Amino acid sequence: MPRDIHILTEAQLRQFVSVDETAIDIVAKAFATLAGGEVIMPPIMSMDIPSVHGEVDVKTAYIPGFDGFAVKISPGFFNNPSIGLPSTNGLMVLFSAKTGVVEAVLLDNGYLTDVRTAAAGGLAAKLMAPQNVETAGVMGTGAQARLQIEAAHLVRPFKKVLVWGRDAGKAAACAADIAARTGVDAVAEPDPARLVAESQLVVTTTPSAEAVLKADWLHPGLHITAMGSDQTGKNEIDPAAFTKLDVYVADRISQCETLGELRSALQAGTVATTDGINELGQVVLDPSLGRKSDREITLCDLTGTGAQDTAIATFAFAAAKTAGTGTIVEA
Amino acid sequence: MPRDIHILTEAQLRQFVSVDETAIDIVAKAFATLAGGEVIMPPIMSMDIPSVHGEVDVKTAYIPGFDGFAVKISPGFFNNPSIGLPSTNGLMVLFSAKTGVVEAVLLDNGYLTDVRTAAAGGLAAKLMAPQNVETAGVMGTGAQARLQIEAAHLVRPFKKVLVWGRDAGKAAACAADIAARTGVDAVAEPDPARLVAESQLVVTTTPSAEAVLKADWLHPGLHITAMGSDQTGKNEIDPAAFTKLDVYVADRISQCETLGELRSALQAGTVATTDGINELGQVVLDPSLGRKSDREITLCDLTGTGAQDTAIATFAFAAAKTAGTGTIVEA
Repeated sequence: MPRDIHILTEAQLRQFVSVDETAIDIVAKAFATLAGGEVIMPPIMSMDIPSVHGEVDVKTAYIPGFDGFAVKISPGFFNNPSIGLPSTNGLMVLFSAKTGVVEAVLLDNGYLTDVRTAAAGGLAAKLMAPQNVETAGVMGTGAQARLQIEAAHLVRPFKKVLVWGRDAGKAAACAADIAARTGVDAVAEPDPARLVAESQLVVTTTPSAEAVLKADWLHPGLHITAMGSDQTGKNEIDPAAFTKLDVYVADRISQCETLGELRSALQAGTVATTDGINELGQVVLDPSLGRKSDREITLCDLTGTGAQDTAIATFAFAAAKTAGTGTIVEA
Repeated sequence: MPRDIHILTEAQLRQFVSVDETAIDIVAKAFATLAGGEVIMPPIMSMDIPSVHGEVDVKTAYIPGFDGFAVKISPGFFNNPSIGLPSTNGLMVLFSAKTGVVEAVLLDNGYLTDVRTAAAGGLAAKLMAPQNVETAGVMGTGAQARLQIEAAHLVRPFKKVLVWGRDAGKAAACAADIAARTGVDAVAEPDPARLVAESQLVVTTTPSAEAVLKADWLHPGLHITAMGSDQTGKNEIDPAAFTKLDVYVADRISQCETLGELRSALQAGTVATTDGINELGQVVLDPSLGRKSDREITLCDLTGTGAQDTAIATFAFAAAKTAGTGTIVEA
């Protein structure tokens, strides 16, 4: 019995999904349900292929109340730039939550991941950054450096952005892009200590294996969103910084303790136990679990969850289907 | 930079892939490479969704020397038959082994899985069944009951087939289908003990949680392929049967000890250790590890591997691409 399956390309998906308040709301709903304990989210499937410098991650989650669930396949092949291809690509497959039937194949080349990741950063800033942010800093100069600042600016309309990266040219280019996208004064800042000192909100977006943000730099009224570490072996935040935090929030404790900043802190002993740690969805449900004063120092640790994928994919497909966009295959 | 992605439907894939000697050879090559230790195959990702009586499995494997690797997503939603839908469906996504770029989406509704599963059974029969099989028996009456017998008949052209199932009507229908497909005399046999007694080759294809094939029924010159158990909690072969086996072969030891018949035998203590157990690919490479005489009793335990999926998907896509079949989407 053939059924209609919708095929959507990145260009088509971009018509319906972008880094905006809708995306932040969608992701907030996914985290809230995740915190409610009703989401089914198996551990990430991961395959390393050292011979070609490649890796493949698969994420999924079933969220009660959503029409579908997504399975996302994200390959990263890090020799690709040498032959003119992006390192990362991938797609999401959306299934009916009632019957498991394939509904849609979203050939997004990682675009939906970019959006849902930035939206989680926007949500973290909304719930945890001080009310008044004059200056935002970003460490790292890739696609997420741009998108995280764009998302944060939606919820904290700061006046200035500082960009730090190992490569001064890339930092300048990133600052120029951010200025063009947000209309905010954005400049490269070669000294990461100064960047943190001058910012009330800092987003770290690097794939670093060694801390790029030192404990000594923390100051009252700072919020940090650390979204670079999503694998064992990555670490952006000095483990000693955890002793200075007033509030630490994980997107998912079970992931952060093995893949996020929490892993390094547990290993270094600056966090003794995960008891008492809140997840981002709990802060959505009860914002008093986030920042309590403008003087507190807060950190949100983002590793990326299958719940976000299911939420953004379900939204994207519903919008495209309503608009009649996409190729339909009878399969 | 948009790239061509090929979308292939089940009807299109059926033009190029079927249960035949080519499929058995493809699967044999995958198992041989798997046994060589060069295949990268992460543990199966599994998500249970009890509220809708659903489950989703994801399998993958990277096989050196193959142009691509597949990620297979297999949902099973067991309330579906009540609304006229099949329980299982799913698809495979094929990626370039060099760049990780999406090459093709194979909307096969589980057809390629059916073929590669039957082909593994055919391979097991080829390597482990006695040379002369007059009668083959099959326990279970579903799609795999039909396909396993079809595959086994390619390598052991038996004259008679006995079919046992809990439902006499389904057993009769399955026997009629087998007779029509293979031209062999096939009849329903209500007594499973008699079915085993009269057969030299028995394939078990049930989702049973309790042994359907008893240890007392084993006799010299019997080969059993057990392919029904692919989850913790399933069990087709009486654990006591393991004490009577001359040869036991696993498709993958790490899977069989948690998902296959080996699990129940280890639990019952009729197998003390997995030391010394061979995998099917080792028997491909050295057939002397299989059956040594017509009097031996042998068992092959099949749980299904991502290596088979990658092998069949790579073959199917290459054939369809050469023929110019499929829908091309620029994504």
